[in-house]
Parts: sequence; structure tokens; C-alpha cells
Amino acid sequence: MTLPAADIAEFLGAAKDLAASAAPVALRHFRRPLAVEAKVDTSPVTEADRETEAHLRAAIRARFPDHGIVGEEFGAEAQGAAFVWTLDPIDGTKSFLSGHPLWGTLIALSHRGRPILGVISMPALGEVMYGGPGLGCRLDGRPVQARPAPPLAEAFVMINELPRILAAHPAQAARLLAAGRFPRAAADCYSYLQFAAGWVDAVVDCGLQPYDWLAVLPLVEAAGGRITDWQGRPLGPESDGRVLAARPELHAELLACLA
Amino acid sequence: MTLPAADIAEFLGAAKDLAASAAPVALRHFRRPLAVEAKVDTSPVTEADRETEAHLRAAIRARFPDHGIVGEEFGAEAQGAAFVWTLDPIDGTKSFLSGHPLWGTLIALSHRGRPILGVISMPALGEVMYGGPGLGCRLDGRPVQARPAPPLAEAFVMINELPRILAAHPAQAARLLAAGRFPRAAADCYSYLQFAAGWVDAVVDCGLQPYDWLAVLPLVEAAGGRITDWQGRPLGPESDGRVLAARPELHAELLACLA
Repeated sequence: MTLPAADIAEFLGAAKDLAASAAPVALRHFRRPLAVEAKVDTSPVTEADRETEAHLRAAIRARFPDHGIVGEEFGAEAQGAAFVWTLDPIDGTKSFLSGHPLWGTLIALSHRGRPILGVISMPALGEVMYGGPGLGCRLDGRPVQARPAPPLAEAFVMINELPRILAAHPAQAARLLAAGRFPRAAADCYSYLQFAAGWVDAVVDCGLQPYDWLAVLPLVEAAGGRITDWQGRPLGPESDGRVLAARPELHAELLACLA
Repeated sequence: MTLPAADIAEFLGAAKDLAASAAPVALRHFRRPLAVEAKVDTSPVTEADRETEAHLRAAIRARFPDHGIVGEEFGAEAQGAAFVWTLDPIDGTKSFLSGHPLWGTLIALSHRGRPILGVISMPALGEVMYGGPGLGCRLDGRPVQARPAPPLAEAFVMINELPRILAAHPAQAARLLAAGRFPRAAADCYSYLQFAAGWVDAVVDCGLQPYDWLAVLPLVEAAGGRITDWQGRPLGPESDGRVLAARPELHAELLACLA
């Protein structure tokens, strides 16, 4: 089923409004003392996470009462609806907790399980990227796309979660660090924004949850990139959290590196 | 010899002026196509580096004609003068080249070899930190200091240049990654700004040149931190480029980890 263009335009406008209205909620807690709790998986949780997600959920419910919502902090509601919003209120909690500005709010909309638009909002930078299949990809309103892929030996590869990849996949980590012109230890959603804006050539990532990649996927694809797991399979609910994004030709070279 | 307070105040004001006037010079090239050259050490050099340093040198010569200047791009002039400015026009060239906003301009002033003030200017963020011994440390005009050190097991440790440390010092890298609550792969001068602002507990670094650490040292010390090499020796012209910054008690724990 193809969605009417008017609907998509309304959803995209709503997603941008959501990002803009949530930014000050998260920023209120940034660089201020806050209570850090340990979740089962030891990732830090903050009041900012919860307040931001609660704000986004209330805004979505008010505007689209028949849509579903899935969020990192408060689980799923109406997950069987045709349209489902997926929220990661603060992607990059470690950055947030250390005064580092590269944390973002991720907002995705799926239609019958297919991601149709995504938003990466960077409140501390005042930058926002949005788009999806058929919508293109825009950074602060300006159309952007991934740059032509160089050969791997010349590529600028962002290695997200390097400590985790080293621990869980040491052979692949060693090959990644030896490949590319500028292997770079990085983290979280900003690497994908850099890719879709045409500033870096690839992102390798590990340990992602669907709420981490659902907003990123439509942006990467709209910018001309390919995004899969480390075996080249499409990302889906069963994915193992390992992610590779690049232009198709470099994507193939990196798949070999990650095999 | 103690310097008159009026002189120090003038130098600090000048350093802030220098940082402010250099920011737009560097920003003109940020996120724009630029020619990347390979230096002997393969670090990328850009027109932005050279124009920013040339701008800073001209401004220093005009205001302090009898001062010496040492810079990353254009070497040393009057290095034997009582006062010597040390410049790193763009610390974080890889960030600069990849559209990533965490690159900075570093400005240090030494008197007879002793660093007396430092500036970390972050043009893409609009943030600036400045200070030195007896001057305190300020971020965007607000006094800041390092936070009380937690035990290492609870510490937020920034590991700069992790790929380089892994390659050159694998045993220490493994211990670092196993220590601390939030080991974090990071890079460049912003980690020190985070430390001096009280947002993280320690910075471990590798491969630094004097122009990388001369501006950072007075800020770390003014904020209450200790900064040495990995053996606990003071940083100096003979240092091997490995750097550790933390509050004294955590510094001692990390020295053991890096032994």
C-alpha cells in the first residue's frame, strides 16, 4: 500500500515538531548534576531520558491517538497499530552524562513495520536531520546525501562502540583498525548524521537496539547508503545489533572485513 | 621571578581576543570541500590549519613584537624570548575533516619555559575555556573546576587515541578498558575541557606534541587536576607524548593501571 503524499508530509512535519519541542526538555538536564541509576545492562539512565520520552509520548498521543508508540524508557503501547513511532529520547547517554554535546534524540515512524521516516535531533548542537524513502534527507533544512565512496584504503570509517567491538569481536576489530585511511573511534547517532551529510564514508556499529537504528535507517537509505547487519542482511526485529552503513561499493568491501 | 598581575591580565585578555578572532578563520573551511594533504606522519593538514595559524601569528606579532611564537604549521620564531606563545590552530584535524564539531584551537603562553596560561577554543561549539596558575579556570566566563575524584571503579575515564594506544601499548589498553565505570574512546582537546569543567574524572592520552598539551596543562592544573606522563613525571620538552590528567588520588590509581 502506498501512502498518500499528504499523509507523509504531515507525518514529517509532526516529526520535526516533536524533535523541536523535545530539545529543551532534554537540555534542561544537560551539564547539571543528575541522579545516575544503573539499569540491568549498566547503561546509565537519567531523568532527562524519562522526561523527554514522556514529553514525546504525550505529544504523539495528542496528535495521532490511533498510532502506536515504542520507546526505550516506557516500553510499547498499541504496537499493533498501522503507524508506530519509535523513540530513543537520549541516544548517547554517556555523552550526555559527561557534558559532551554529541547526544541525540531519535524519532522514527514505521508503517506496517516498514520505517518511513526518521529524525536525528542534536539538541546541544542545534542540528536536526530528517527524511526517509522518497523524502530525501535534509540537515537543518538543506538537502544532503552521502558522498561517493572511495576505496576502503582511502575511506573515513567511523567505528562506533570500539571498546565493545574489541571485547566481543577482536578479530574484526583488528581488521577494521588496520583498514581505511582514518579509522576513528566514535559513538552513537552522530556518526550516521556525518555519513548522510557526506562527511564520512562508513559507520560500523555494535550493540544497537531497534530504537537505536530505526530512525537512522531511513536517513541512511534516503542519503544513498546501504545499511545492514555485519552479514549484509536487512535490519529487522531479529537483528543482533551489529550494523554497517556505507555506499554500496564500500559496504561490500567492509562486509568482507567484518566476516 | 613573579609576573606583575597587570601583565598576566593583559596576556589573558590577549589570549581570549586571539581565540575569538581566529574562530571565524577556521570556521570558513569547516564542512566545506578542502584539499587534504598527507604529511610525513600522515596526519591531515588543511588550508584551515595554515590560515588560522598565520592569522594568530600576525595578531601576536602586532601586539607583542618581542614575544616568541611556536606553532604546529610554521615552526618557531624567537623561541628564546622570555614569553613564547605556542599554537595548535586545529587540534582534532580528523574531526574537522569529518564535519565533527569537536576540534579546537589551542593557545598557550609560557614565561621562561613555564606555561602561565592556556586557552581551549571550540569554534564549532562556540565554547572557550581559559585560565592558568593563579588565574583559575573559566568556561565561557564561568569559573569551573574538576569534580572530586571517585574511586577508579566508579570513574568516567576518557581514553583519547584508543586505536593508537591499542597498537602501541596493548597491555595498558586492556587494563584501561577493564577499569573505570565508563571507559570512553575519545579524542583531542575536548576531553581536557570536560575534565576541567568537572564533567569527567580523567583523561588518558597518547602521541601528544608540546603544542597539544601546553595549552591544556595550565587549565588542568588551575582546575585542580594533576597532569603528567604515564610514569608520573612532569610534562616537558623531553616527554614521550603519553599524558594522564586526573585529580591526584585518581591520578595515582591510573598510574598503576598504566605501569
